[in-house]
Amino acid sequence: MQGINKYIEQNKNRFLEELIDLLKIPSVSADPAYSKDVLNTSVAVQKSLQEAGCDLVEIHETAGYPIVYGEKIIDPALPTILVYGHYDVQPADPIELWNSPPYEPVIKKTNLHPQGAIFARGACDDKGQMYMHVKALEFMVKTNQLPCNVKFMIEGEEEVGSDNLGIYVANNKEKLANDIILISDTGMIANDVPSITTGLRGLSYVEVEVTGPNRDLHSGLYGGAVANPINILTKMIASLHDENNHITVPGFYDKVENLSKEERAEMAKAPFSLENYKKALDIEAVYGEEGYTTNERNSIRPTLDVNGIWGGYIGEGAKTVIASQAFAKISMRLVPNQDWEEITELFKTHFTSIAPKGVTVKVTPHHGGQGYVTPIDTIGYQAASKAYEATFGKKPIPQRSGGSIPIVALFEQELNSKTILMGFGLDSDAIHSPNEHFGIWNYLKGIETIPYFYKYFTEMKS
Amino acid sequence: MQGINKYIEQNKNRFLEELIDLLKIPSVSADPAYSKDVLNTSVAVQKSLQEAGCDLVEIHETAGYPIVYGEKIIDPALPTILVYGHYDVQPADPIELWNSPPYEPVIKKTNLHPQGAIFARGACDDKGQMYMHVKALEFMVKTNQLPCNVKFMIEGEEEVGSDNLGIYVANNKEKLANDIILISDTGMIANDVPSITTGLRGLSYVEVEVTGPNRDLHSGLYGGAVANPINILTKMIASLHDENNHITVPGFYDKVENLSKEERAEMAKAPFSLENYKKALDIEAVYGEEGYTTNERNSIRPTLDVNGIWGGYIGEGAKTVIASQAFAKISMRLVPNQDWEEITELFKTHFTSIAPKGVTVKVTPHHGGQGYVTPIDTIGYQAASKAYEATFGKKPIPQRSGGSIPIVALFEQELNSKTILMGFGLDSDAIHSPNEHFGIWNYLKGIETIPYFYKYFTEMKS
Repeated sequence: MQGINKYIEQNKNRFLEELIDLLKIPSVSADPAYSKDVLNTSVAVQKSLQEAGCDLVEIHETAGYPIVYGEKIIDPALPTILVYGHYDVQPADPIELWNSPPYEPVIKKTNLHPQGAIFARGACDDKGQMYMHVKALEFMVKTNQLPCNVKFMIEGEEEVGSDNLGIYVANNKEKLANDIILISDTGMIANDVPSITTGLRGLSYVEVEVTGPNRDLHSGLYGGAVANPINILTKMIASLHDENNHITVPGFYDKVENLSKEERAEMAKAPFSLENYKKALDIEAVYGEEGYTTNERNSIRPTLDVNGIWGGYIGEGAKTVIASQAFAKISMRLVPNQDWEEITELFKTHFTSIAPKGVTVKVTPHHGGQGYVTPIDTIGYQAASKAYEATFGKKPIPQRSGGSIPIVALFEQELNSKTILMGFGLDSDAIHSPNEHFGIWNYLKGIETIPYFYKYFTEMKS
Repeated sequence: MQGINKYIEQNKNRFLEELIDLLKIPSVSADPAYSKDVLNTSVAVQKSLQEAGCDLVEIHETAGYPIVYGEKIIDPALPTILVYGHYDVQPADPIELWNSPPYEPVIKKTNLHPQGAIFARGACDDKGQMYMHVKALEFMVKTNQLPCNVKFMIEGEEEVGSDNLGIYVANNKEKLANDIILISDTGMIANDVPSITTGLRGLSYVEVEVTGPNRDLHSGLYGGAVANPINILTKMIASLHDENNHITVPGFYDKVENLSKEERAEMAKAPFSLENYKKALDIEAVYGEEGYTTNERNSIRPTLDVNGIWGGYIGEGAKTVIASQAFAKISMRLVPNQDWEEITELFKTHFTSIAPKGVTVKVTPHHGGQGYVTPIDTIGYQAASKAYEATFGKKPIPQRSGGSIPIVALFEQELNSKTILMGFGLDSDAIHSPNEHFGIWNYLKGIETIPYFYKYFTEMKS
């Protein structure tokens, strides 16, 4: 990839400014209040693909937010890479914990990002990482070095479960036909320890509702005499883990893939400092399933976490009330072979069954998706590995991620393609949290590395 | 009390209109947003006492909301009744469950109130019940039938713990000197089953905070590997009750008064239909401490209830986050001999001790108060009993209430007086809940009954 470093050096200010413009639009897909902004973002992405050199860019309407499709087909005989990304972002709450407004990007230096990082919601997840691909394409087109065909599919509903993307993919198999899918929506271990994500966890996300008396009650007159939905909800949730932090939903572990001693030993070689991990989070101790290390707990083991809980009086001061209802949002991260729909059903059955008399329980599935594993003996993985070697000067480490991109399993099923997960963010980039950021070095390194993947993949495929 | 029925008949529309005007002011003491309204309410109460015939009415500033003091001293040699009430109200949340706006009073008929009830926040607790005393005084003054001296002390912080009232009472013992304290801030069994509250539970109200990682985290990247403050909070709260719904805080029951078989048998005679109770709340079963009846559970037994819980993402849709913090408001209703400050300390020590490593816990006491029991062999109780007999045509039943008026125990301690709790509301009047209301019949019956208490108490005391 001749002249890549020079091209980046000459254009890096523009690359940053363009990304900053994109980050200024609050494309929160979960909250209908932002729907205009989400739509405006799709138009901005369309424009950026046109300017980068796509021959065809379309906005596909769905039942939810649109999918931006772009392509540059230089020769049907050559391999085709399908780039997937998303232009929607997580809600910014809790807003008050941001040091700068989430949609007014600022650049600040951090310990891990001495060259500066862009702070904004979506900086890393996924606008920044998605935009690396747009700029990599621009470089290859402008310098006549695009070695193969490329298709882009950028959606606006990843943070709310990608429901409509699944339908779109199933209905457009021919249009989306490809040899490999490329996604940057994960992270790497450290700037000097490049890694490629080879596994993703599946996800089942549900909302639960516990209803007791038909109205809020005075806690003096009724306290102790009726089931308090909040107390009951805490009891029910608490019972979902046993004393070893195993999940108690019957059948939950039945299909969990058990890694061999050798595989676990291999995993344990990845550089990891428990002290630094605890220090970065300001915690005295880690916590999790008995018998597994921290890295195993958040990659090869399934989990169950409450993501939100609410009920009763949560304002200033005190109110002596027994709430009529209590609610929680609960998600389970799943590992390969666990089917998310089956797990959702198991959860629903179990959670309903443990409700005591005096309350009723409703479980509403939000969304979910299957886990995924990329084999490392494929051309796709090997090409990615060589690309990192070319730009980082060292071989990347294959690594299972604890996160989920539910759509990846569906891509394989519908499009019959493997996915390569080239992530350039760091775990400490605070995605989904206040003060999300993305290192400028990482952003530019991604733009530099991606074209090498095109090159090696095309060469190895030929 | 000559001409009482005629006087009420002639003035009842005005009595209603005046109360409705008072209910229109949203005097929510828990929420600083309403501070002007709370202050305006104190002025309205001052005016109403002047108009009813008090010789002296003062507004006493405190560190919080003011106390309205009024008096009519006709002869220092006669007995003095001190009327206590409060002009502040509970927050109206959840607003969306009100059938009419909480501060726009409307009159509607209900099954239990065929003559209509006023629906508004504070209608029963306590503006309506407090105002009965103002109108009863008006009657006695206008018809020259006031048999004794009377003092009014109406505060604006009952719903937030009466902190400043305690200071005021301690500093004004002489001014507040009295022979009996009269309060209408409780209920009665039914319109055809009058009852007098002879016991109140104490209260300890705390807020707890569980902090895990120093920021919200992505539940995929960290799920299963760090202590999730919400999961931990549910586990900690769930552990506060054992499988028999006994409270597990060490020492919690040590001083609980145990009633004799005979006393429990006497209590069990009060009319009560479990079927109607369940039906009124739309619940399939009651729930509470093993070994006690519903009426015992909410009167002679202490309880622990979560009044509010919150943490993580509680907006629309789904967010895959592990919250940095989780919170709950927890209150304990206490019975005679349990000291609220001691119980608060026991709770704090226990709750902090059960936190696992990986989180820190903070317990902040909100407010509290001691429980109280009125002996039925006193002149005060006997005078009240005769008053009910005069207007209801039957003897009232003595009844322990599950509610708390923490200040009552303090009155006895500081002013050396017993308190008579003449409540005219019904449990179904939805105090502290949406659609709070107060029967018009009950309101007028209160105005009718109170002067008889003045009469009998003065006669029996002489």
